[in-house]
Amino acid sequence: MSGCPYFEKRHLLFKNKPPNEDEEEAAQAGVNNASKGGIIYGDYLQLDKIVTAQVLQSEVKGNKIHDEHLFIVTHQAYELWFKQILFELDAVREIFISGHVRDERNMLKVNTRIHRIVMIFRLLVDQFAVLETMTALDFFDFREYLTPASGFQSLQFRLIENKTGVPDNLRVPYNRRHYRDNFKGRESEMLLASEKEPSLLKLVEEWLERTPGLEVDGFNFWQRLEINIFDGLNREKEKITKMPDSEEKEEMMVEVVKQKELFTSLFDEKRHDHLVSKGERRISYKALQGALMINFYREEPRFQVPFQLLTSLMDIDTLMTKWRYNHVCMVHRMIGSKAGTGGSSGYHYLRSTVSDRYKVFVDLFNLATFLVPRHWVPKLNPNVHTFLYMAECCDSSYCSSEDSD
Amino acid sequence: MSGCPYFEKRHLLFKNKPPNEDEEEAAQAGVNNASKGGIIYGDYLQLDKIVTAQVLQSEVKGNKIHDEHLFIVTHQAYELWFKQILFELDAVREIFISGHVRDERNMLKVNTRIHRIVMIFRLLVDQFAVLETMTALDFFDFREYLTPASGFQSLQFRLIENKTGVPDNLRVPYNRRHYRDNFKGRESEMLLASEKEPSLLKLVEEWLERTPGLEVDGFNFWQRLEINIFDGLNREKEKITKMPDSEEKEEMMVEVVKQKELFTSLFDEKRHDHLVSKGERRISYKALQGALMINFYREEPRFQVPFQLLTSLMDIDTLMTKWRYNHVCMVHRMIGSKAGTGGSSGYHYLRSTVSDRYKVFVDLFNLATFLVPRHWVPKLNPNVHTFLYMAECCDSSYCSSEDSD
Amino acid sequence: MSGCPYFEKRHLLFKNKPPNEDEEEAAQAGVNNASKGGIIYGDYLQLDKIVTAQVLQSEVKGNKIHDEHLFIVTHQAYELWFKQILFELDAVREIFISGHVRDERNMLKVNTRIHRIVMIFRLLVDQFAVLETMTALDFFDFREYLTPASGFQSLQFRLIENKTGVPDNLRVPYNRRHYRDNFKGRESEMLLASEKEPSLLKLVEEWLERTPGLEVDGFNFWQRLEINIFDGLNREKEKITKMPDSEEKEEMMVEVVKQKELFTSLFDEKRHDHLVSKGERRISYKALQGALMINFYREEPRFQVPFQLLTSLMDIDTLMTKWRYNHVCMVHRMIGSKAGTGGSSGYHYLRSTVSDRYKVFVDLFNLATFLVPRHWVPKLNPNVHTFLYMAECCDSSYCSSEDSD
Amino acid sequence: MSGCPYFEKRHLLFKNKPPNEDEEEAAQAGVNNASKGGIIYGDYLQLDKIVTAQVLQSEVKGNKIHDEHLFIVTHQAYELWFKQILFELDAVREIFISGHVRDERNMLKVNTRIHRIVMIFRLLVDQFAVLETMTALDFFDFREYLTPASGFQSLQFRLIENKTGVPDNLRVPYNRRHYRDNFKGRESEMLLASEKEPSLLKLVEEWLERTPGLEVDGFNFWQRLEINIFDGLNREKEKITKMPDSEEKEEMMVEVVKQKELFTSLFDEKRHDHLVSKGERRISYKALQGALMINFYREEPRFQVPFQLLTSLMDIDTLMTKWRYNHVCMVHRMIGSKAGTGGSSGYHYLRSTVSDRYKVFVDLFNLATFLVPRHWVPKLNPNVHTFLYMAECCDSSYCSSEDSD
Repeated sequence: MSGCPYFEKRHLLFKNKPPNEDEEEAAQAGVNNASKGGIIYGDYLQLDKIVTAQVLQSEVKGNKIHDEHLFIVTHQAYELWFKQILFELDAVREIFISGHVRDERNMLKVNTRIHRIVMIFRLLVDQFAVLETMTALDFFDFREYLTPASGFQSLQFRLIENKTGVPDNLRVPYNRRHYRDNFKGRESEMLLASEKEPSLLKLVEEWLERTPGLEVDGFNFWQRLEINIFDGLNREKEKITKMPDSEEKEEMMVEVVKQKELFTSLFDEKRHDHLVSKGERRISYKALQGALMINFYREEPRFQVPFQLLTSLMDIDTLMTKWRYNHVCMVHRMIGSKAGTGGSSGYHYLRSTVSDRYKVFVDLFNLATFLVPRHWVPKLNPNVHTFLYMAECCDSSYCSSEDSD
Repeated sequence: MSGCPYFEKRHLLFKNKPPNEDEEEAAQAGVNNASKGGIIYGDYLQLDKIVTAQVLQSEVKGNKIHDEHLFIVTHQAYELWFKQILFELDAVREIFISGHVRDERNMLKVNTRIHRIVMIFRLLVDQFAVLETMTALDFFDFREYLTPASGFQSLQFRLIENKTGVPDNLRVPYNRRHYRDNFKGRESEMLLASEKEPSLLKLVEEWLERTPGLEVDGFNFWQRLEINIFDGLNREKEKITKMPDSEEKEEMMVEVVKQKELFTSLFDEKRHDHLVSKGERRISYKALQGALMINFYREEPRFQVPFQLLTSLMDIDTLMTKWRYNHVCMVHRMIGSKAGTGGSSGYHYLRSTVSDRYKVFVDLFNLATFLVPRHWVPKLNPNVHTFLYMAECCDSSYCSSEDSD
Repeated sequence: MSGCPYFEKRHLLFKNKPPNEDEEEAAQAGVNNASKGGIIYGDYLQLDKIVTAQVLQSEVKGNKIHDEHLFIVTHQAYELWFKQILFELDAVREIFISGHVRDERNMLKVNTRIHRIVMIFRLLVDQFAVLETMTALDFFDFREYLTPASGFQSLQFRLIENKTGVPDNLRVPYNRRHYRDNFKGRESEMLLASEKEPSLLKLVEEWLERTPGLEVDGFNFWQRLEINIFDGLNREKEKITKMPDSEEKEEMMVEVVKQKELFTSLFDEKRHDHLVSKGERRISYKALQGALMINFYREEPRFQVPFQLLTSLMDIDTLMTKWRYNHVCMVHRMIGSKAGTGGSSGYHYLRSTVSDRYKVFVDLFNLATFLVPRHWVPKLNPNVHTFLYMAECCDSSYCSSEDSD
Repeated sequence: MSGCPYFEKRHLLFKNKPPNEDEEEAAQAGVNNASKGGIIYGDYLQLDKIVTAQVLQSEVKGNKIHDEHLFIVTHQAYELWFKQILFELDAVREIFISGHVRDERNMLKVNTRIHRIVMIFRLLVDQFAVLETMTALDFFDFREYLTPASGFQSLQFRLIENKTGVPDNLRVPYNRRHYRDNFKGRESEMLLASEKEPSLLKLVEEWLERTPGLEVDGFNFWQRLEINIFDGLNREKEKITKMPDSEEKEEMMVEVVKQKELFTSLFDEKRHDHLVSKGERRISYKALQGALMINFYREEPRFQVPFQLLTSLMDIDTLMTKWRYNHVCMVHRMIGSKAGTGGSSGYHYLRSTVSDRYKVFVDLFNLATFLVPRHWVPKLNPNVHTFLYMAECCDSSYCSSEDSD
């Protein structure tokens, strides 16, 4: 960055690692190099690669079209940021996979990195405004030269989808082809591998299943909640029954019946599994319980950071879907919808991906359907409350003596 | 971009250039290549370069720090967009340098490209929000490894400054070093060349000097304006003189005297040149007249697009200065200001560049000082009005026969 | 705004209108008032109304919920900006309705105001990020108190839709009710009136129909274009015929046939009218021609500003649809989709409005389907070219004497 | 909001408060009202006030200027959001003042509300883009009518400044007048009161002073840190001493000496108090220690949320200062800087407020100056570590019985 004075000499003095002989020597060498020349800005950022990678196909074909440069740079900027998203996504998944997430201290990293992905996606959504300075006519002038290059071939975007948790069976096929058919060799293998690795969704699901307070032989949140809700609804019903007859009374009775059905479905594990099989729910019954518990007790110190995480996951979902939608809008502008001309189109395919099918954490959104008044939420007794204050400690290696809990 | 269906087969059919034998053959070859494989997305964008250019110095030195990846990607994204800005800037300057700007049809290109720079800078200002997800502590963990790399070494940013028109003599020196001392060899030469080439400011100045209506033997805007303004002020003064004595009367008299001084200074070429020599004005006396004329008659069809251009140039200036300021804010957060510790700092240097010295088109902003009521603006007589409607034609090679008008 | 020094005494001196006796006196009175007190910031902005209009229903009902304040302020901010959008929309429509648009000088106003609407919508899209700091749980705490208030009752939003040109027959009904059923009395009448007034779409359509160059007895753009396109396609077909047999040849032949069908449909007025009757096209056949002409000749000085207008109209459409989509995302977060619970929902209704049915200027997007290589576009001969340079003059009252040119 | 289906009948059923007889009746009444009509959207938002509060002074004075409407609406939108900021600010301050912050569960509220202020300021910074669609010329047409209204008279903005913690003695005077002189009567009293109430800065300072781990008879962070840092620097010095003579050795020695001075100043309470008296530091010596401790141990579960709070406070400061700077840029555009015309100007005044003097939490930024390598940070022994895990519990009334731990 221009004139960025991040680098001040004092830092030559500092080593960021506990010194041991060998490392210290290496670092010292580094320091020596640095002060005698070291690495300079352009080399550090490998600008010889970055700013020389803009080859206009229109120019290669002898008909240079100015706006192709913007088209290339914009897509490269997207790919750069996709790289960063994958880097963060992998780091977060690693914390979960390795079990380090059980040390609550690592939740700061998890949250920070997930939040960073949110901020990047926010930028990427805005970035369309730059490409939209190109008109359909400008694009038309060079789009023939791009064939058969296509965004369908963006490996990194597909990896982001897979690693976040877009399931293969919910993808919309385009021209009856599987998305992976656009890739070959190593790329195809990477995609296959990413489908098989635990996705962020899967890892979060497992983490939610461990939410303290769900234990059947402990606080038993789920059963308490069920009791409270149906007690509450029954009290409502009684009250309504006592009201004098009126249109309003009828409406309210209809409503209370609906609510009972709604909550009956919530506490019905078979129904849950059925919805999962249809793709309408994505996480396990136990994980759903954990998510609802974190929502209801979000103010407990133990749950504040987990609650933020759930919020950020919804942010990512929302922003990915906004990204998709902004993409659709731009494609509409660039190539039209071909409405009324017959034939399916890329536009319509893309439009179909702006769908809840592609919302990975859709269950977190749909929790809003199952909120209840605060006084229906089971009270924490002092013991559980203290447990929630202290419990994080029990996950930590520092207090392994309590692991037996 | 993910799943972007820009590329549909029909385009294989189209050539964007008037067909002549050789070109057609070449294009046909291209088409053949394309349909038999052609270029695919990753090769087109040279992703092998773009997404492999992230080498963490902390990792090289044996102490991988996660956040360095973000630091690298963010700076690379900046440099990618700087490349695009330079590409647009050079294209616009070329239109001016070659004289093509005299064909009014090229104003669309000029305006579109300048507007694109505006949109890119808007994105770059927002982009700081991503880097700000890194805390000072995260940065501290790897900043020692970067020495002596420094944003002061960003060639492209300096080129943008020079090509826009930041003058060498108004730059704030950092640690008593000339900005070009951070560069060697070819880079240093490129910078020197960019200082000598006509900057956007210079080119716009020349273009403003040609504003139709300034001709002394024609509409003679400047003289008419001078007469109208002083007539107006004199009428004001007379009216005030006739008011009964009051505090208000005194205030108004003081004010009218100030206004006379202000406008006397406007019409004083020597004073203008003096301000230019001090760097408080940057464009010639004639160009200033043109800019004011375009402002006053911005609704004339001939001037609508030029007026937009002047507005966009102010946008660029504003956004560059906001970029600088956002940069300062981030640096403050990352390395502190060292307030109270003695010693100058990069933070203070950067802060000093958020200054009107670095506002290239400062004269356009300051025009606001010289606005007058609409009825003081010289009326266009029908001839001039028609001239302004038609005049663009006279610049064009298409209607050189009408040059005599 | 804080410390905003817009107001400096000199302005007391200036009148913005040509002085005549009465007005001058009135203005003088104003000046006197001003300097003796005049209007102060809070009164000017009527802050006694604006910042006292936040009455929390939860507080009224005895259970104050903190986040309801944000809910109210956000919606009020939306309504404030809707008011501004309507103000600009009405002003632009008035320029068209009154015929003032025929004086090209007024195009600056049209463009500036339409662009302002774009900038406001951009802000409104971003504004959701503020409301999203409220979680579903926070919202649940007070949403019962709002009944039956509902965004469906936003008069101004419906007026924006109607005045832009969302047609009644393409609206998605919600719970089988007509949108106007949510309003009574004067509001209902205002809506009905807004449906009957010429919408921006209608006015732009009429303006497009007058595009110079469409005259059958003049340049006759449409016929020339048709000839060029079919000549071009026939030449393509011939060339393909001569190619040696191959899979590629077959593909190209299929493609050329499709293209012929596509363009045959473009030049088929009956087909156009059929698509209009189905709502897939919205503007007249003649207006479509004008829009395509402006696109192809956008660099002509006469067409630069009209081309910007068309681009801004697409921006408005895109942003309204992004606004709708962001709204959907927020509603999903706040109340869930009720997926799997049976029953239709507001979420699904809103989702259905994120549709091309609500894209008023959908034809402008779909023009991209009908682009052709530049050398197929009919050449302007010097006469027409000059005409396009000068023609704006002919619309103007200033140069009616030159109409004979 | 348009078509917002937040309100579904089921909520009629729910009461958000534990039912007791009286309240229940009242609520029931509310429900009855609601279902029989209740409050509708326009009444709820008091739109009769909000969207009728736009009175153009230019129109009142008989010369309606279109753009004044935008000017009014923009400022009203600012004031609406200022109201919301004050609402959040007061709520947060109340949590601190009342001591509720000692129950860690309330940190969620504190963080959420402070974060909301961040999001609002982000919007307000962007909002300038809308007002910038007005040109200096448009503004000139009506600015005379506004006298003497001025943004200096924005009560709410001054309240925000005071309640955040802008100290009276660091304010830049404008035209030698105290800022409060722009206000009278009740407004002046409100401002005076806001100066005397504990500001957010003051409250955060007190909270930081209580950071667990600072206790001299406990973990004694500060002393341990001092020892570690000087041990570290001495080891560095020794190592350098042993290096063979070279330019680099000299540089490093100079640097290590500087570092010792820097850190000597950090641990010098008198020096701290001196800097406070000059306004270069704002928080107490103890609070500074707490802030540094939270930074170094930010990953401890106990400190994760506090660390976020500190980050958000810097965000607010940064955004307020960006808001000021964007304001300056707009004023420059609207009225010029009057550079070279003599006389001070509002532009220059505003520019002077974009200064670290107005950065309330400047100490948090400057902590970056005092970072040290991780291995210099005092290790938590298991006891302290566990204490930090659990300690939050001890602040809470829920577990006072466990205070003895």
